[in-house]
Amino acid sequence: MKPVKVGICGLGTVGGGTFNVLKRNAEEIERRAGRQIIVEQIGTRHENPACDTKGTQLTADIFEVASNPEVDIVVELIGGYDVALQLVMTAIENGKHVVTANKALIAVHGNEIFEAAQKKNVMVAFEASVAGGIPIIKAIREGLASNRINWLAGIINGTGNFIMTEMREKGRDFNDVLKEAQALGYAEADPTFDVEGIDAAHKLTILASLAFGIPLQFEKAFTEGISKITREDVQYAEELGYRIKHLGISRHAENGIELRVHPTLIPRSALIANVNGVMNAVMVDGDAVGQTLYYGAGAGAEPTASAVVSDIIDVVRTLTADRDNRVPHLAFQPSALSDVPVLPISETESAYYLRMNAVEKPGVLAKVSSILGEEGINIEAIIQKETKEYQVPVIILTQRVLERKMDEAISRIEALDEINGQVTRIRVEHFTA
Amino acid sequence: MKPVKVGICGLGTVGGGTFNVLKRNAEEIERRAGRQIIVEQIGTRHENPACDTKGTQLTADIFEVASNPEVDIVVELIGGYDVALQLVMTAIENGKHVVTANKALIAVHGNEIFEAAQKKNVMVAFEASVAGGIPIIKAIREGLASNRINWLAGIINGTGNFIMTEMREKGRDFNDVLKEAQALGYAEADPTFDVEGIDAAHKLTILASLAFGIPLQFEKAFTEGISKITREDVQYAEELGYRIKHLGISRHAENGIELRVHPTLIPRSALIANVNGVMNAVMVDGDAVGQTLYYGAGAGAEPTASAVVSDIIDVVRTLTADRDNRVPHLAFQPSALSDVPVLPISETESAYYLRMNAVEKPGVLAKVSSILGEEGINIEAIIQKETKEYQVPVIILTQRVLERKMDEAISRIEALDEINGQVTRIRVEHFTA
Repeated sequence: MKPVKVGICGLGTVGGGTFNVLKRNAEEIERRAGRQIIVEQIGTRHENPACDTKGTQLTADIFEVASNPEVDIVVELIGGYDVALQLVMTAIENGKHVVTANKALIAVHGNEIFEAAQKKNVMVAFEASVAGGIPIIKAIREGLASNRINWLAGIINGTGNFIMTEMREKGRDFNDVLKEAQALGYAEADPTFDVEGIDAAHKLTILASLAFGIPLQFEKAFTEGISKITREDVQYAEELGYRIKHLGISRHAENGIELRVHPTLIPRSALIANVNGVMNAVMVDGDAVGQTLYYGAGAGAEPTASAVVSDIIDVVRTLTADRDNRVPHLAFQPSALSDVPVLPISETESAYYLRMNAVEKPGVLAKVSSILGEEGINIEAIIQKETKEYQVPVIILTQRVLERKMDEAISRIEALDEINGQVTRIRVEHFTA
Repeated sequence: MKPVKVGICGLGTVGGGTFNVLKRNAEEIERRAGRQIIVEQIGTRHENPACDTKGTQLTADIFEVASNPEVDIVVELIGGYDVALQLVMTAIENGKHVVTANKALIAVHGNEIFEAAQKKNVMVAFEASVAGGIPIIKAIREGLASNRINWLAGIINGTGNFIMTEMREKGRDFNDVLKEAQALGYAEADPTFDVEGIDAAHKLTILASLAFGIPLQFEKAFTEGISKITREDVQYAEELGYRIKHLGISRHAENGIELRVHPTLIPRSALIANVNGVMNAVMVDGDAVGQTLYYGAGAGAEPTASAVVSDIIDVVRTLTADRDNRVPHLAFQPSALSDVPVLPISETESAYYLRMNAVEKPGVLAKVSSILGEEGINIEAIIQKETKEYQVPVIILTQRVLERKMDEAISRIEALDEINGQVTRIRVEHFTA
């Protein structure tokens, strides 16, 4: 089957990420999509130093991409309203499927775009427009489709969450943190879009329509920014058992839909209160499922590209498969399953928590440490508990090591006269890599 | 277009929930699926007192459902291996699409089931088999399809997480909590399946195949239960900055796939360490998206039914739509969008945090309280801060009230001689309803 051809418009942060993910994961993507996906053309006025575009057709005119008869899917990553709208409408008019990450475009012009797409029988996918790499649109639109959604609430602007997190953790002032965020590239020179909640309102508008089946109505969203939050408010909230987050909230109330973005006190114990830094999270409450939460990076080149490329795969799967095999049962095409082996536990790697009962004699710890050392196991921490009994519990945290090394070390430790009974072993994971 | 007809096999907890969700949300489901979905027949030997099945055809023979020429989709909710396998294979043989919540069946017999389904060109959907209502299968298989998955780790057994949470929060022993879990109905009389990690290994086997494109290999999963964890271990872990969770972990290591369920120490600051009680959560780390997390109820009648019915909708959407409109852009069919109004902020309801500067005079709090009282606003908490200045900050937490009541109260409070400047107002949400 011939490859599906993609035209990327815009080679900035997200465009560059999209190009790189498509290229780096090409083989894995083909195994999932059932068909090769290639970048036929890129419309950009600037090269992106992060991308090796050698061998790919480039043009400075994005409309050339939207009219290129070879292109099946136009990926709009230029941002903004007017030109983006023109581009998307041209692509649709030309019978191209469209994938976009443009929340402003969808929130403001989505209704007309979708109408045009329906008339021309093309797909328009926009997962990347809300919460970056988190597949929240798919979750609401498909994964929770059986529910009457009661409400949703999200941290859907990373800049705002970074500022609120810094203010709380370090007792800093808004303006002070904003300057740092600008220096780090998390906030724009004109930060209005982020800190006044406009960006979040774009995303919330989209989520509310998906949840409640109402047309996109960005103009009716209420927005209040975080610039007036003082460090005292943050501190008083903490004293009361709350944290302040900049939330987008949409609720199906009795007489209508609430659609609002504003700073919000939420109980410190709530999972979403523990979403920190630039990370995003969306809670969705459905009548059947109850509360669910979706967490991940809401911005950045590759997290956003993750959603863009997954949308491309979604479109390709629909274009390619028999009706009944759109998504393969095990995600990959049956003929593309891999025979990479499942490892026995002895060949897996982990850090370890060890607890043992040692007879109180000088030199016990030295003996245990030297066994670990001989097996190539580094010690992270040791606690020796005080006790009145004749034996003392010793707790050791180790660094990562092959399980069979640990098996050997443990049987040697258990053989020591100074150790009573068995060594308790619990694996440790830090989720860092 | 004529309705799609569903046959439900098994009317226990999940079967009953599925019947009730399909019935209660019938109108909303039709607006999303583009077609009416009705329960044609139920195969069960026992009525479920939670279900009003009047008017629905019942049979004690589930195989009658799998052979009923009127039934389009067979929903297998009887659980177990042998009869369930026979039932599903019969349904496929008869050209029915299948939806199942049966993790044991998929983990052990999935390979042959999928092969048969492919031959007969029918769909087999199993979102409910892992982590109940959390759409984690859809997230991995579609939402993150662009990623090379590095690893995933999940709390995918609610019973185990309830026990670990109670042990930590209350310093209790394993056996003590297990007895309570059994009394509460969270654990079976024979708890082996849950506490020894077999149930979690079934689910992990499925997730690993979706993530890494390998055939289902339940027999190779390593399982270690939580029954040997002592309350001392829980406490020592806490002292070291960790929590112990019963995790299913699968990682793409250099030389193969790790597939293991065991108690695990994880840093207390990790979001997943804060997933408590019977709740489930799955972390997925992809090369493009980075770390993502999916949280929700992993069991129970309606959370599981949420996934079962969403799968039914998925099948119906594929059966019904033109190729390019399988899932409507805004989740609901364009003709089924609702004109329910978006409320102005003054008509929304919220609790409030208020901060004001009061001149230190007797009676200020009384005046403020009585204004709130007159506007029908209940006070949850008041803090008056100590200060050396001539004015003191007063912080008030209120209960939920209409925003326009609060607007009125605030303008009256600001008019008081004893209050300097403006009242700071931040909305408060508890996410309880």
